[in-house]
Parts: sequence; structure tokens; C-alpha cells
Amino acid sequence: MWSVTEHLADILGTVRPLEPIELQLLDAQGCVLVDDVTVPVSLPPFDNSSMDGYAVRAADVAGASEEFPAVLTVIGDVAAGRGGPLTVGPGQTARIMTGAPLPPGAEAVVPVEWTDGGLGGGAVSGMRAHSTAPEGASGQVRIHRAAQPRAYVRARGSDVRAGDRALEAGTVLRAPQIALLAAIGRGTVRVRPRPRVVVLSTGSELVQPGEPLGEGQVYDANSFALTAAAREAGALAYRVGAVDDDAETLRATIEDQLIRADLVVTTGGVSVGAYDVVKEALAHVGDEDEEGGGVDFRTLAMQPGKPQGFGSIGPDHTPLLALPGNPVSSYVSFELFARPAIRTLMGVRDIHRPSARAVLRADKALTSPDGRRQFLRGRYDAEAGEVTPVGGAGSHLVAALAHADALIVVPERTVSVEPGTEVDVVVLD
Amino acid sequence: MWSVTEHLADILGTVRPLEPIELQLLDAQGCVLVDDVTVPVSLPPFDNSSMDGYAVRAADVAGASEEFPAVLTVIGDVAAGRGGPLTVGPGQTARIMTGAPLPPGAEAVVPVEWTDGGLGGGAVSGMRAHSTAPEGASGQVRIHRAAQPRAYVRARGSDVRAGDRALEAGTVLRAPQIALLAAIGRGTVRVRPRPRVVVLSTGSELVQPGEPLGEGQVYDANSFALTAAAREAGALAYRVGAVDDDAETLRATIEDQLIRADLVVTTGGVSVGAYDVVKEALAHVGDEDEEGGGVDFRTLAMQPGKPQGFGSIGPDHTPLLALPGNPVSSYVSFELFARPAIRTLMGVRDIHRPSARAVLRADKALTSPDGRRQFLRGRYDAEAGEVTPVGGAGSHLVAALAHADALIVVPERTVSVEPGTEVDVVVLD
Repeated sequence: MWSVTEHLADILGTVRPLEPIELQLLDAQGCVLVDDVTVPVSLPPFDNSSMDGYAVRAADVAGASEEFPAVLTVIGDVAAGRGGPLTVGPGQTARIMTGAPLPPGAEAVVPVEWTDGGLGGGAVSGMRAHSTAPEGASGQVRIHRAAQPRAYVRARGSDVRAGDRALEAGTVLRAPQIALLAAIGRGTVRVRPRPRVVVLSTGSELVQPGEPLGEGQVYDANSFALTAAAREAGALAYRVGAVDDDAETLRATIEDQLIRADLVVTTGGVSVGAYDVVKEALAHVGDEDEEGGGVDFRTLAMQPGKPQGFGSIGPDHTPLLALPGNPVSSYVSFELFARPAIRTLMGVRDIHRPSARAVLRADKALTSPDGRRQFLRGRYDAEAGEVTPVGGAGSHLVAALAHADALIVVPERTVSVEPGTEVDVVVLD
Repeated sequence: MWSVTEHLADILGTVRPLEPIELQLLDAQGCVLVDDVTVPVSLPPFDNSSMDGYAVRAADVAGASEEFPAVLTVIGDVAAGRGGPLTVGPGQTARIMTGAPLPPGAEAVVPVEWTDGGLGGGAVSGMRAHSTAPEGASGQVRIHRAAQPRAYVRARGSDVRAGDRALEAGTVLRAPQIALLAAIGRGTVRVRPRPRVVVLSTGSELVQPGEPLGEGQVYDANSFALTAAAREAGALAYRVGAVDDDAETLRATIEDQLIRADLVVTTGGVSVGAYDVVKEALAHVGDEDEEGGGVDFRTLAMQPGKPQGFGSIGPDHTPLLALPGNPVSSYVSFELFARPAIRTLMGVRDIHRPSARAVLRADKALTSPDGRRQFLRGRYDAEAGEVTPVGGAGSHLVAALAHADALIVVPERTVSVEPGTEVDVVVLD
């Protein structure tokens, strides 16, 4: 008998983060940055206007008011990304748009709302479009307010400076980090790729959902559930589907799939029966005269999920997790062992689900077998700090699983948990 | 001036959940179920064994012990998904595998570990594989323990019963729900599809990351950031990239894209400048002699994100959000307006990010303009119930955004928030 902790430690001791690759920025979403990223050019790259308005010399607008406006000559437009260089001399101004470089000579920006917009009337609420009123870029403008030097000017390098560390190695790239990388001009980035996870279920009784169910058959739920779960963990998951209980077929199928697998996850066929084909097929793989490590089958001190297999397979020693076949067993086993393995392959720092302490809300005590760490399905109320069991302990209760959002953990030496007691909870959402 | 609340209400009053489609189960991951799903066939569909062992009649093993075992004749194997019907008569037993149907005549299962496995010795730890030891399906077996009727038998319908409601309309399909749907035989499911969101940024100054930066140019960050953010919200997002500040080009580009858009998001060109091309291009769209609604441009009482456009465009009245162009303004606007719109298109019940109250941790008071709802970037510590501002209020501070995981909300009438005060926080993770 192995403990959950020992088994997980053995898995994590074997699985290594994937080799990094250079990806286009949006392809790297959700991936982990491998190197520190340094800012190559300061942001903003030049002093620029934070408003639509007029670029002025402070002295020219000193003391200006609506009653006694400063009257300046408009020498042209400075719009982001267009037009040649303009220099603002004494008594002059340039119309300037948000984000446009502050022209030489100018020291500040006066928002358009504090001017007559060149129309000779009162304060305006905005500029007319240049395409329909090009005369706005010339003539005279009345400025209604004074401006301190640097007013409405965003200084070069006020966001980040060349040489600063923009992002640290190990950062997961989500939208705001992608924003920053794009802003500093990174078109591609070195990250660990999403792990490719091949999921297959085993069992001659398994029928593809949507097909008619024969005598003694059940639908294949595991290959769907674990493919979806692998994706939620961040992997690219390939569902192979159900394989018959035949050792040669299974072995050939797995070998075929290795070319697209960073991790293989199987379900079923790992227990003590006479048709436990995963055990049968993969027990050979570890022979000393064959390449590719081997697969260990163990009995774990846990419920559900007692029988487990783990090892590596094929010339690249691709890690393989052989999970039990009961739907709830396989799902819980995936959460406990496959998900941390996937997160490790990704290079994520925090590979575990969040956990919490919560007060058990139940009508009666929970019972748990002595010597086994039990994982019960529950609904967790973070605000109240409470967890309520959903369904029973049976490993076939997939309906209960679909209504749970947490696992209630009952330690090995605990055989009964009274309502009102604090328990450990793994939060699945 | 419109309030944030009014603007959001106007958007949500217009956007409708997308029409449902039937999708393959794994294609429906993350989507919202449109109808209640009823269980067509009870689960498990037949009484079956929860252990690898022997299917027995209770009377035949009454009083059995290791010292005085019950000796039964093995009439064959019952394995999941294989073999014909067997009937267990008095004095007989069948080897049975986990998940296999309990054969007629048998009332209970005795785990193999409580037998001699047919080997004539002591208790065994498992069965030998049928492929290498077919004789295990015949001969005699010694049973070391008695069995209550129904022991280790999972009853037909003990998980879900035909006619039960498996999942409720409105459920988001994640891995456990996909497990349940597969288990009850659903190969496809009717859901609202992922919204297709077209993202384009505008600005003649914008350069694609990775290209050299010319005088007065900046990198296009918004189209990357919002494409990534739209995906994180659950959408299929298409990044068109940066469009020059030319009304005709912009209009033609948007019209081209409408064929793949459930929502169009633009950034930039919505303010009061002379080159605010989004405003210019889309102001015409609402003309009464044209199809397709219209786009309203508004000034919102918020910071950042004051100028905002919203409306619909084209023959299908595709919703369009015209967000401001400053990177932080566009990101905050996306969070406040585009994300809830996307979530509404998806049909999700809870369209908003979680929010919390947290104590402000800062060296000095936060200041906020009177009459504007301010959204500052912060780092939220849920455990401590505290939030710390990151960077300043400037809408160009994209580096700060990349290190934030929350927005600190300062209400319209508040101009200063002292450290130690409780504030509202929008949690972005």
C-alpha cells in the first residue's frame, strides 16, 4: 500500500517541464514564460499628449482665461502616426491628438474643451474631423486656461524604461501580460508549450455516447471527462476513445499515439481482475531489454482510486498514468495525479488546486475506511466556510460528481467525521 | 455624461444570447446548456459488481471462513462487455469483474482477496490474467467469507434513474458535466455556441510587435490584449489587427469582418480629436436610410475610459463596442462592458467578475476626480482581505496592469480614499 502523498511525489519526481519553444504572442496565451523579459525601448517611446487639444508654450498661455484668452496661431496638426515634424514657436500652437508626440518647442497641452477650437465662439466640446473641416489645422485659436509645463504630457519612459524587467520568468501569460509584451514590441515569446495529452479508456463494455446500448454495455464517459479535464488544466488533449480489453490492441494503440503525446492517460484495467488489460499490456513495457522505463502498478491507501499505474513508455520515456476505470475514481485520480503532472509539464509554479478548511454541513457523520484517504464530492460555500457532501461514497456516482465543486478530504486515520467538524477541501472550480 | 451603470444597462438591454446549436460533446466544453437534460436510461443500466471477485448465492457461503471455506464450482467468467449469459445455480459461482452484470442466480459478490482464487492455497491478492491462465474460469474455488445479499453489488439506477433530470438548462459544461452527459449516452448536446468576437485596433501610429518602430510610432498592444481577453471570457476571438486612421478603410474592414462576427470590438478613435476615425466612420452607420441600427458615442463618468461607443452594425445588427485607445482604458472598458456582453451572448447566468470588499493598503490616500467612477489597478489578497494599488492612475500604464489582479473601484462622489478604508474590488483572476 502506498499513500497518496508518496504516489504523487513519485510522479512529480519523474515528470519534467517541457522544452521551451518560441511562439507567436497569441499562441502563447496561458503558457509559462521561460526567460525574464526585458524592456527594449522605453514606454511611451516619446513624450506625448494625454488629451486631444493644443500643444503650447507655457509662457504664451500664462494668465489666460475665458474672458481674456490667449490667442495663438495654429501651425498644423500633430496626430498619432501621421504628418511631418512641426516646431512650435512663440505665439504658435499645434493641434495635437491623444498619443501624438509633443512637438519641439511646446511644453504642455491644453485640452480642446478649454479653447474655442478655432471657431471664434465659446468653449467647444471637441474638434471637427479633419477630413470634413481641414481648416481646423490653421488659423487662430483662443486658449481659455493657463498651463503648467508638462500638463497633459505623458513623459517618455513613464510606463516602463528600456532595461527594466517587464515580466519575470515563470509568469503565466494572460491578457494583461500579453498586452505588455505587445506594447514593448515582442511579436513572439519563449514559453513552455501546452502539453499534449492523449486520453484513452479501456473496456470491451464501453459504447460511444449516441450509439445504442447493448446488453451488459455502458457508455464511455471517462475518455470524454478526462479529455475535458486535461484541457481545463491547460493541455491540448486528444481523445482516442475506448479500446477493447485486448492487450495487443491496447499496446499497439498506445504506441501509435506516442508521436503526439507528452503524457498518456488511460482509464480502466488496472485492478486485480482477470481482464485488467492495461496492467497486462504495460507490465511488459518495463522489461530490461526494452527501451522506455516501465509502468508500476500499485495499491494506494485512498478511496476512490485504490488501483493506480504510473511509469513511462516508448523511446522518449513518455510519462503514462494508468487510472482506474470507475468514472468517479478516474476523475478523482485525474485531479490528484494527472492534473499536477500536466501543470508540471507546463512549468507552472503552483501545480495544485486551491484548498481550504471548511465546516462540514451534513445530517449525519461521514464514515471513511480506516487507513484510506477518502475523497468525497461536496459543494463548497466559500463565504460561509462550509462544505456539504453531494451523493455518497460510491465510485460510480457520476451524477453527484456533476453537481459537486469540491472534494472533501478525510485523512487516513479518520473513520468518522461529525457534522460541524472542520475538514480539508480541494476547491475544483 | 452617462454613468457606468447606465451604459452597461444599455449594452445588456441590446445584446441577446446566441441561438443554440447542437454540438459534439467535447466541442460544447465551456458552453451553456440550453435545455434540461433528462436521463434516458438508468445508471448503472444493470446490477453490477463493484469488485473483482466471485458472484455467489448468499446461502452457499453462509458461515464460510478461511478455516472452513465454502467450496464452489466455477462455471465461467463474467467480464464487462464480453461472454454470453451465465446462470449461477446452487453450489456454483462465476468469476466476475468490476462493472460486469451480476449474473442471474447470484445475489452478492465476494472480492477475490477473500478467496483462494481457485489455486487451492491461501488467500490470493488478485486473479491471474485470463489470457495466460484460462483455467481460472473453471474448476473450484474456496470462499473464505460469508456475504450478505447485495454485498459489492451496485444496483441498477443507483446513480441516476431514467426520467431524472441530469442537468438543468443554463449549466456551464465543464469536465464533470461532460462526464455525466457521456455516461447517459449523449453524444451531442444543444448549447449556445461560443461567441465569435472580431477585435481590431485603430491608429496610423500602430506597428505590429516584432517590426521596427519608426518616429512617432507605438506598438499595437490593444488588439492582442483584447483578443486574449475575449478568449478568456469564453469567446472565439479573431484579431484583425491595426487599421489606419481612415474612415473608409475602417468601414470597409468592419463590413468585411461582419460575416464572422457575433460582436465587433474596436479600440481607439472615439474621443474628441480631429482624427477620431471610428467615430467618423460609424456615425454614418445609423442613418435612417441604412440598415443596421447605429452606433452611439458617449462620454462616461468614469476614469479611465471616458469616451465610449456602442451600437449595432450591418444587416444582422451585429453589436459593436468602440472602446477608447489607451491600453489601460481599452482593457478596463473591455472588462466592464465587453466581457459582460460576451458572457450574455454565451447565455451564462453570472456575467460579472466576482467582486469583494477589501481594506486599502497604501502609503497615501488615493485621489479620484469628482463625478467619475475610477478603476485603479491593484493586487488583491483574498486571505488578508486587502488590496494594494499597482502603478498610478494613468491610462497608459500597461506595465502596472500586467502586475495587477484586481480593479479598485472608487465611486463617483469620492475624491479621496484613505489607507485602511474598505473599498470595492473587482477580482480579475
